[in-house]
Amino acid sequence: MKILLAVLLAPMLYSTPMPQPWKSVPAAGHLVIDSNFAIEVHGFTDARVDSAVRRSTARISRQTGIPIIGGKRVLVVERATEGADESYVLDVSPEKAVLEASTVEGALHGLETFTQLIMPGAEGFEAASVHIEDHPRFPWRGLMIDCSRHWMPIEVIERNLDAMAAVKLNALHWHLSDDQGFRVESKRFPKLQQFGSDGHFYTQDQVRHIIAYARDRGIRVVPEFDIPGHTTSWFVGYPELASAPGPYSIERSWGIFQPTMDPSREETYKFLDKFLGEMTALFPDQYFHVGGDEVDPTQWKQSASIQAFARAHHLKTPDDLQAYFIHRVEGLVKKYGKTMIGWDEVLNPELQADTLIQSWRGPAALANAARKGHHGILSYGYYLDHMNPASFHYAIDPQIDQQLLDDKGASLILGGEACMWTEYVTPETVDSRIWPIAAAIAERLWSPKDVTNVDSMYDRLDAISRVLESVGIRSNEQSMLRRMGGGPGLRVLADASESLGIDGRQVARKYTSLVPLNRFVDAVPPESPTVRRLEQMAQKVASGPAGAKAEIARLRAAFTEWSANDTQIDGNFLTSELIPLSRNLSNLGSVGLRALEYLSSGKSAPPDWAAQQLQEIGSMEKPVAEVRLAAISPVRVLLKAIAGSASGSVEEHK
Amino acid sequence: MKILLAVLLAPMLYSTPMPQPWKSVPAAGHLVIDSNFAIEVHGFTDARVDSAVRRSTARISRQTGIPIIGGKRVLVVERATEGADESYVLDVSPEKAVLEASTVEGALHGLETFTQLIMPGAEGFEAASVHIEDHPRFPWRGLMIDCSRHWMPIEVIERNLDAMAAVKLNALHWHLSDDQGFRVESKRFPKLQQFGSDGHFYTQDQVRHIIAYARDRGIRVVPEFDIPGHTTSWFVGYPELASAPGPYSIERSWGIFQPTMDPSREETYKFLDKFLGEMTALFPDQYFHVGGDEVDPTQWKQSASIQAFARAHHLKTPDDLQAYFIHRVEGLVKKYGKTMIGWDEVLNPELQADTLIQSWRGPAALANAARKGHHGILSYGYYLDHMNPASFHYAIDPQIDQQLLDDKGASLILGGEACMWTEYVTPETVDSRIWPIAAAIAERLWSPKDVTNVDSMYDRLDAISRVLESVGIRSNEQSMLRRMGGGPGLRVLADASESLGIDGRQVARKYTSLVPLNRFVDAVPPESPTVRRLEQMAQKVASGPAGAKAEIARLRAAFTEWSANDTQIDGNFLTSELIPLSRNLSNLGSVGLRALEYLSSGKSAPPDWAAQQLQEIGSMEKPVAEVRLAAISPVRVLLKAIAGSASGSVEEHK
Repeated sequence: MKILLAVLLAPMLYSTPMPQPWKSVPAAGHLVIDSNFAIEVHGFTDARVDSAVRRSTARISRQTGIPIIGGKRVLVVERATEGADESYVLDVSPEKAVLEASTVEGALHGLETFTQLIMPGAEGFEAASVHIEDHPRFPWRGLMIDCSRHWMPIEVIERNLDAMAAVKLNALHWHLSDDQGFRVESKRFPKLQQFGSDGHFYTQDQVRHIIAYARDRGIRVVPEFDIPGHTTSWFVGYPELASAPGPYSIERSWGIFQPTMDPSREETYKFLDKFLGEMTALFPDQYFHVGGDEVDPTQWKQSASIQAFARAHHLKTPDDLQAYFIHRVEGLVKKYGKTMIGWDEVLNPELQADTLIQSWRGPAALANAARKGHHGILSYGYYLDHMNPASFHYAIDPQIDQQLLDDKGASLILGGEACMWTEYVTPETVDSRIWPIAAAIAERLWSPKDVTNVDSMYDRLDAISRVLESVGIRSNEQSMLRRMGGGPGLRVLADASESLGIDGRQVARKYTSLVPLNRFVDAVPPESPTVRRLEQMAQKVASGPAGAKAEIARLRAAFTEWSANDTQIDGNFLTSELIPLSRNLSNLGSVGLRALEYLSSGKSAPPDWAAQQLQEIGSMEKPVAEVRLAAISPVRVLLKAIAGSASGSVEEHK
Repeated sequence: MKILLAVLLAPMLYSTPMPQPWKSVPAAGHLVIDSNFAIEVHGFTDARVDSAVRRSTARISRQTGIPIIGGKRVLVVERATEGADESYVLDVSPEKAVLEASTVEGALHGLETFTQLIMPGAEGFEAASVHIEDHPRFPWRGLMIDCSRHWMPIEVIERNLDAMAAVKLNALHWHLSDDQGFRVESKRFPKLQQFGSDGHFYTQDQVRHIIAYARDRGIRVVPEFDIPGHTTSWFVGYPELASAPGPYSIERSWGIFQPTMDPSREETYKFLDKFLGEMTALFPDQYFHVGGDEVDPTQWKQSASIQAFARAHHLKTPDDLQAYFIHRVEGLVKKYGKTMIGWDEVLNPELQADTLIQSWRGPAALANAARKGHHGILSYGYYLDHMNPASFHYAIDPQIDQQLLDDKGASLILGGEACMWTEYVTPETVDSRIWPIAAAIAERLWSPKDVTNVDSMYDRLDAISRVLESVGIRSNEQSMLRRMGGGPGLRVLADASESLGIDGRQVARKYTSLVPLNRFVDAVPPESPTVRRLEQMAQKVASGPAGAKAEIARLRAAFTEWSANDTQIDGNFLTSELIPLSRNLSNLGSVGLRALEYLSSGKSAPPDWAAQQLQEIGSMEKPVAEVRLAAISPVRVLLKAIAGSASGSVEEHK
């Protein structure tokens, strides 16, 4: 925002891309973008660069609304003689822009950066002059999408790959099987998808299409087939793989379930050998993810034959059995020339050093794996289904504390992965749960460690939201609200609310994969940019009402709207649960208006008024209909300022 | 809105579909829609009905957010023994719904009606019990889309066909050639698209796809190739067809241009014979549109050979030459077994009776044609590019006054067509210019003549907007506003504004097909539902503030927001032209707040205050940046009430 405010008065300011580049030196002037814009490639003859040039041109047209005819060489892409891997150098001057990279990946990243520089300036769309030198901090910057719990059609994967490329993420971790669905066509074992998918699976042609689509954008595709637990869907067609007799049916609930592969039968490994043979051929990436997490040992404990097998092989605990199974699977993965990935739980003394550990447990677990020589990637703290604010994820760094891990160990940490588990997410809502928040994680994994200013990150997050929209990401929030038929007040209520993540939902009601995710909580994003702006305004008012006239006017407008909004919600089964929330917002508006009146008029509030109101709004903290009322925060800021000036201390009511 | 308000208190009320059915009798109870919903077809074995059943089921899933598994027979589609053409009977009861139709078209219409009955009720999504008997008033209910002036990709046509089907429009008039582009692949004359389209044309396979897509939805596709004027794009590849020597290039401006086919050369008709042979085979519909409008006679007058030809054939005026040309073309169209359509200008004494006249000139012209025995369709008053409010179009009726036309003549009027000319419309904005307003025209063409209540029409228009969204229509307003980078205040300003149509734009600046349509005026719709609601509230306040507490609160919220909004607009080349508009809105908000204060407090305004303010806001009527400030109207209502009560008359200031 601050970037745009100045445009009419000053030459175009440089707008920092997201992730923030390692080095950027703004200069005077700007490059004009008009219908004649064209990109020329020198020194590369690469189909991927050519296709990225076409995509970038189309995107610039969408980002600006300018019909691009081409003809004028504006951006030149050149083969660099220095720099390697994913690095690039971008120079923008009023005459032209030059992008240098020695690899295709670097060129792709530079093109994404260039499109982000384009902003509406004083006379047209412009890219401000700048010299950028950029490269990634970590080589592995991933996003996991769970396509099992809720089926994600191929368009969802495509547009998320485009969004990943926009923020320089380079690994799609495709979670393709779980208790609730097996999502890839197997030609060797067709009952996997025939019985385990409700008809929702990717054909092998579609898989190849997605891999090519991702590769075109500089993104690797790592498949995950989660074994030996999380495998109910496999057993619907192949019950003989399980540790207890069937029949099995596709799991419709959420949680950790008992069905687990039988580690004691040779037939299990023969099946997996053939299966891995087929799938390692289908997925060309060097890495292959076998899951290995959250094994419930109940079936193993209850099976006499498995217990006998365990005794015969001196496998004393379920962990030992799991280690045995993983060791066998690791051998099969290696046989097909791949490097295995597993979640924390696969770590055991038998594990070969080149197996990569993905950690959901956290830095201590990751450090432990690294000390044993394993490469690692961090997902702890990057679980998007928890619906934490972007600032929460932004504070999580894959670089492990030196007290836990020495430099050699630290060098084994390849990066991190945002994880989108989909118990409470559908194709309609998945974009709004991943984006723009995953862009904050992308920045953590790309930019210098010391790029940590949260306000500045949020400014870039606002800007990147528009870029993500231009690549096809859709929030669907407004259409979902309209569908609820609650009238125009729902939009105001939604702007003032934030939805809870998995922890808040699994306690609220019984969910299964058949429960429609069409409620207010599903439409509302995890973080409210409106409230964040209002809170900043409230802080300005609190620190000195005299210099905050515009902020007072804006806050008054918001509070007036809130206070009048309760009459705007029409009742039906989708909106009736929101009545207490709407009432709270209305009350909050009234309190906010009075607080603003005291602060702006200089009149004193009655003694203890602010304290009482703070207590009152404290009771509004309790989630209603699985959303929290974010709107509390700006009002609280004002009340604390009043209470603080009355008592001489802001702290006592916090 | 009024339908939803009562849901918690009373059994679900019947929500009237749009177009309003001829007969509907609501009954007690409702039919529940859940994941088990399924449609069963009896007595039809028609691929189009089957595909409509699949589409309707998917749409109900999108409209409700319910994952539909099926299994329970909820809606039964049956072959009716009575009724014909497009009629259907729909019975919804708490047990099941039965749809009866004797034709595929009737069944398709009934399915659309059924999906519109589904609303969020007290306990879930429900269709209220009702008995509906329905049929169209006019057999020809069309939408014309101009794909020449701005190219419309195939997805635009597809989603508009879905929207047409939703409101029971049954004719797509596809305007495929004009000065600015020739948009269909011709295999006989490939230079038409090679030189005349900038590469933007439909292949013959795509044309066949669109025809099948439309037919699946009960929609005929009538192509228009506009001759002998509006033909510059033809002459780029075939200058010998023109009345003056070339070379020609694709026209980039808007208006009426001189290039016109040469009516004097036999080669012109030989070309058209082959061309019409190819195109009448490609487009299976009985009707074929040859345009014939707006011929500029300059080239004819300046050509010695054409003048000699005219003299030899006793063609004294350009109109005679045009009549000669049209007569020859009519013969060719007939030769290929088709019925010709032309705009008003093709009417001449030589014209055969079965040629259909499409009238942009109005009822007198249409009556004149009908008196000569021609079928007619009305487009006068249905021009969407003029950006009139829905109520304007709604008041236009194709039924011609009996003083102008007797019953026999009246029976020749087949219906009407909404026309979307695209000088100021792109693929990004076209949906918001056609919809939802065209639904009001669709209702005029389908529903009884006496269905004319405007408020009730607007209620249905609100509801149909959500249906249109579920078929894929997108306004893009919000993303265009975000792209402008003007900050959050733009949304408020846009909600308070209405953009001007072609008349307001062609005078404002010089436009061509290369001028980006990415400004505020392009994002803002022609009509503001927000302001319409506020005006209704203001009327309630004006007629008695005591009973309008909720309305006063809502108006206060809106006015407060307007008054604080001016600080929310960040400046750049796209937003700087909005500064006066934003300032006006801000002032309007302040005046509105004071007016509300006088009315709600009962305090008297100073003498002449209201009159002065009315004069003041009168000066805000002048369009700014090609938009008008719709927000004036609710403030004016309040000021008039104050002025009226002061002077004893509301009228004096109107």
